[in-house]
Order: sequence, then structure tokens, then C-alpha cells
Amino acid sequence: MHTDLVAALDIGGTKIAAALVDGDGRLLVRAQRSTPAREDGATVMGVVNAVLEELKASGDWSRVRAVGIGSAGPVDASNGTVSPVNVPGWRGFPLVAEVTKTTGPLRVVLVGDGVAMTAAEHWQGAARGHDNALCMVVSTGVGGGLVLNGRLHPGITGNAGHIGHISVDLDGDLCACGSHGCVERIASGPNIARRAVESGWRPGPDGDATAAAVAASAQAGDPLALSSFQRAAQALAAGIAATATLVELEVVVIGGGVAGAGETLFAPLREQLRRYATLSFATGVEVVPAQLAGDAGLVGAAAAAAEALGLWSARHAMPARTA
Amino acid sequence: MHTDLVAALDIGGTKIAAALVDGDGRLLVRAQRSTPAREDGATVMGVVNAVLEELKASGDWSRVRAVGIGSAGPVDASNGTVSPVNVPGWRGFPLVAEVTKTTGPLRVVLVGDGVAMTAAEHWQGAARGHDNALCMVVSTGVGGGLVLNGRLHPGITGNAGHIGHISVDLDGDLCACGSHGCVERIASGPNIARRAVESGWRPGPDGDATAAAVAASAQAGDPLALSSFQRAAQALAAGIAATATLVELEVVVIGGGVAGAGETLFAPLREQLRRYATLSFATGVEVVPAQLAGDAGLVGAAAAAAEALGLWSARHAMPARTA
Repeated sequence: MHTDLVAALDIGGTKIAAALVDGDGRLLVRAQRSTPAREDGATVMGVVNAVLEELKASGDWSRVRAVGIGSAGPVDASNGTVSPVNVPGWRGFPLVAEVTKTTGPLRVVLVGDGVAMTAAEHWQGAARGHDNALCMVVSTGVGGGLVLNGRLHPGITGNAGHIGHISVDLDGDLCACGSHGCVERIASGPNIARRAVESGWRPGPDGDATAAAVAASAQAGDPLALSSFQRAAQALAAGIAATATLVELEVVVIGGGVAGAGETLFAPLREQLRRYATLSFATGVEVVPAQLAGDAGLVGAAAAAAEALGLWSARHAMPARTA
Repeated sequence: MHTDLVAALDIGGTKIAAALVDGDGRLLVRAQRSTPAREDGATVMGVVNAVLEELKASGDWSRVRAVGIGSAGPVDASNGTVSPVNVPGWRGFPLVAEVTKTTGPLRVVLVGDGVAMTAAEHWQGAARGHDNALCMVVSTGVGGGLVLNGRLHPGITGNAGHIGHISVDLDGDLCACGSHGCVERIASGPNIARRAVESGWRPGPDGDATAAAVAASAQAGDPLALSSFQRAAQALAAGIAATATLVELEVVVIGGGVAGAGETLFAPLREQLRRYATLSFATGVEVVPAQLAGDAGLVGAAAAAAEALGLWSARHAMPARTA
């Protein structure tokens, strides 16, 4: 039984959540507000402080040993700043310094939300027991994170694993990031829906033209809907194969709304993966659904901090593997 | 002054080399033979044993503490076997076990040749002092290796960093590996030459139609030659940007014959990199030429073994960086 706690923050464009997390991944106290994403930076920070104050009011606060922050990216862990795409009031915002004003001398670990989700799946979910894993969210965007040699790999600035913005189609469509043919530009929910509509697919009487509606059509056998998912699966497969070829993976964990389509996504994805993951050491990579849902961001922010700081270390301190 | 030595083996489709390497990266004794690549597996192994016996005949053999092998891939470090594409007599060949028959109780570390080259550049070359690096060879093929968090990242089977076989053009031409639109399929020397010829470029009076001849034409301003290098640079840039976006890199080191074209390759590569490496944490990656030449395979095989086994450790034991 661990008595040390981590105060976790999960900062996204829609909600700001905080929790006290124990060494078994349980959330003891939880606070959540909507993100005032269109307001100025100080207003957004006010909401972060409000959820932190809720935690501090708990009798368990005295057991907190560290603060873990998972934030929508890009983040810069090397200088403690964040610039979430959907929170324009925060550009190079000194989140770590601002949080420290409320949390005092506790050490603070900042990672991107894809890295946090990965820490959660490695600790408690589908990547558990695997030393080399890619965890992904396929949703409005496509994000991810890496576990290498048994440890989370946040990268120098906390952004590693950004698979949504690797190009798998170098002459392809311009992506919001400025590059071309990115995995996200082809495989995100909005792009699955856009492509279906552009090819002639039409929503049902309810007018729902989201990727979920395209998935329902695909499950009913609609060829245009199936084709759009097939193309998304192809881009995801090329991106996953690239990652496996670059770092060597045992498992790929996929969560997020689009993964909720189940075999409509996973069946063509596994088929396409055989096409792109061809080298002997890459062919064996397994693709499985994520296991953690809504609280993965909080659990993962806590796990990332615990691992970086050596808290709860029996659980994480696997030796780095050598050849 | 270190007195421990590593016996290094560098096994390729053209030559098999061996050397005793000291803790400063010097080659004390060196042996080399042509690879009898078309012969049966036992004949190839006979040549490996011959170069090892040359080393054993040296008075310095008693100072050898480990054996490091860098081999043309794919390799499988997890079971000690190799299957070099250009040595058909070796398929799943138990190289580590066979070498052990000659070297006795010494520990043996096996990595792919891209990983070995990376170990050499990190120890003695252009990646020195960088904790996160991609080192590449652009030549008849395109290979590579990674340094992450200050340490070589061989991957589970010793093949990590295989950037030549990530797809950057998911609908592109079939690659020899079975995938489509791989970096190597676009950027290797033979593909640069093929594309130039297909576009109408013609060799000079000497009939030389290699990538080196295309590079010379490009340097003289030939638009077809320039265009073929431009396309190679685009594929390399997409692959490098993908790697930087996935793991976060400080530096990319490029060696091999095609890199010998100098600014004919590096200038368009840096330009294209701005197009594909767009996220804040990926834009700063620097691309530089490799510094080590012919003996990089031997120096790197020794470095990989020394790092994996903790020899010469002051030189390598940088702590893993945390967020």
C-alpha cells in the first residue's frame, strides 16, 4: 500500500480536470470544469487554479508528493510552457511556473496528452507488461505516445509519439500542421466523414454526418463508408508500420472515438498492416483497443510524474533492455 | 587509459572485417576478406572464423573482454541469428553461437549495421554529445540507427532505426521489402539514377549512369539530374521529419555514397525538411554529414558491445533524461 499521492492535471480544449491519484491508479478526489477556451490566458489559468484549490481543500493533500500535468499540445517540457492548439490564449504559456504558485514546492512533471494517455495504458491498460508500445488516440485528431525499453519516452520536450503528424503521403493534401499527407489528415474522424461525403455518401434521416455515422453505414455494408474507413486504415497502418520499423514495437494500443468503430476500423487496419510492416522484426506487431476511458488523462499524468520522479518505483523501474 | 579491448566484426555483402578496438576507438589489429556471398552458409562462416583467428593470433587477444558484431540485416539479436539480404546462404543463421565456438566464453553483442554505424557516430563522430540522434547511410540502400536519451536504441532485435523502409508514399512504387513508397525506394543511389534516366537524363561519354554521375550533372546545373536529387531529398525529409516527430531528435547524421554529393543533396534536403518537420519540437532538427568513413562499422560494433555490457562506461553512461 502506497501512501504517496500525485496531484494530476488533465488540460484539454474542452475540459480541465484534476485529481489526487494513488499508487494503485485510483482517483481519490476529482475536480473538473469546462475550459474557457476562447478567453484570455489568465482566465484559463484561473480555472486550473480553481480545480487545484478543490484538491488542496481535501484532507489527502498532505500526502501529495508531486504534480503531473498532461496537456493538449504542443507542450514544451524543457521550459515548462504549453501552446494548446485549441486554447489560443495560451501560446508559450508558463504553465509549470503558474501551477507552482498554487502547489508550492512540489515537483511538477509536464507531458503532452498523448504521452499521458500512453503512461496510463502502460500502467493500467492494454500496454501493461509490454516494454515497447505505441499508444494512440484516433478521434478529432490523431495523437500518441511511446513506451521504449520498458519506460515512457516523452522525448526532450514531452511531445514524442506524435504519429498524427508524420507524413505517409508526401505529395498529399496540406495538413493543418503545415505538412502534407499526415496520418491525421487522412485518418481522423472529421477526415473520414469528409472523405465519405466527398465520395457521395449521404447521412441518414437524422442528418448525422460524423465519423460515427459513417461507421454505422460501413457496418451496414455501404461501400462508400467502407471505402473511407479503408483509406483511414491504410494511413494508420503506414504510420504504425513506420513507427515499428523505426523503434521496434510489440504492441499498438488504439483508443478514441474512431476506434469505437471496432472491427470496422481494426479489421482493415490489420490487413493493411501486413502490407506496410514487411520487415521480419516489424511483422509481429499486435494492434489492440485501448482499455482505459475517460480518466486515462488523469491516471496517465500521475503515472508520467511518478515514473519521471521515481515514485511508486517498483511498478515502473524495469531496467532498460540492451541488445 | 583503458586496457580492455573489444573484438569487433563488421559483416556485409561485400566484405567481412574484424578488429581489436580499444577504449579510445583505435583499431589495434585488423583483418579483412571478401564475402563469398554466393557460397553456402558454412563457407561464409569459414571466412568469419579466418578473420577471428587472425585476431586471436595477436598478443593483444588476452585483453579482449567482449565481441561486438555489426551485420547486414535483418538480424535478430534476441536469438543471435542473421539473415543478410545479400548473403542468401545465411537465413536465420546462428551467427552468435557460431562465433562463440571460436571466441569461447566472451560475451557477444549483435546489432544491425545501421545500429553499429550509429554507435560509431555517437561515440566518435558527428552525433557526439547529442542525446537524441538519427544516423543514416544513403548508398545502395538506405539504413539507419537511433540514439535516444543518450543511449543507443538497438530495439528488441537490434534492427531499430530502419528508416529506409518506412513508407512516405503509401500509394507509391513497390519496394523490394514488399511495402510501398519506402524512403529507400525513392532516395537510394540506384533509384536516383533510375529516376534520372527515366526522365530523359543521359550519361556522359564515359557511360557512367550511377548516382555519382547524376550528382556531377546536377552540380553542372542539369535540370533532370537536379530534379532526381530533389525527389530523393523530399523522401529523405519526409522520413527524417517522421522520425523527429515520433521520438524527438536533436541531430541527423547522414553518410554513405549518396551523401558524398554534398550540398547537391543537403541543400534540397534542408529545404524540404522545413516543409515536413512543422511541429514546434521538430523544426529545430539539424542535418549534418557523417564524420567516420570506412572503419565506422568496426568502431560501431565495438561501441555497441561496450555500451550494452557497460565497458568503458564513463564514456557512455549518461543518465536517461526524464521529462
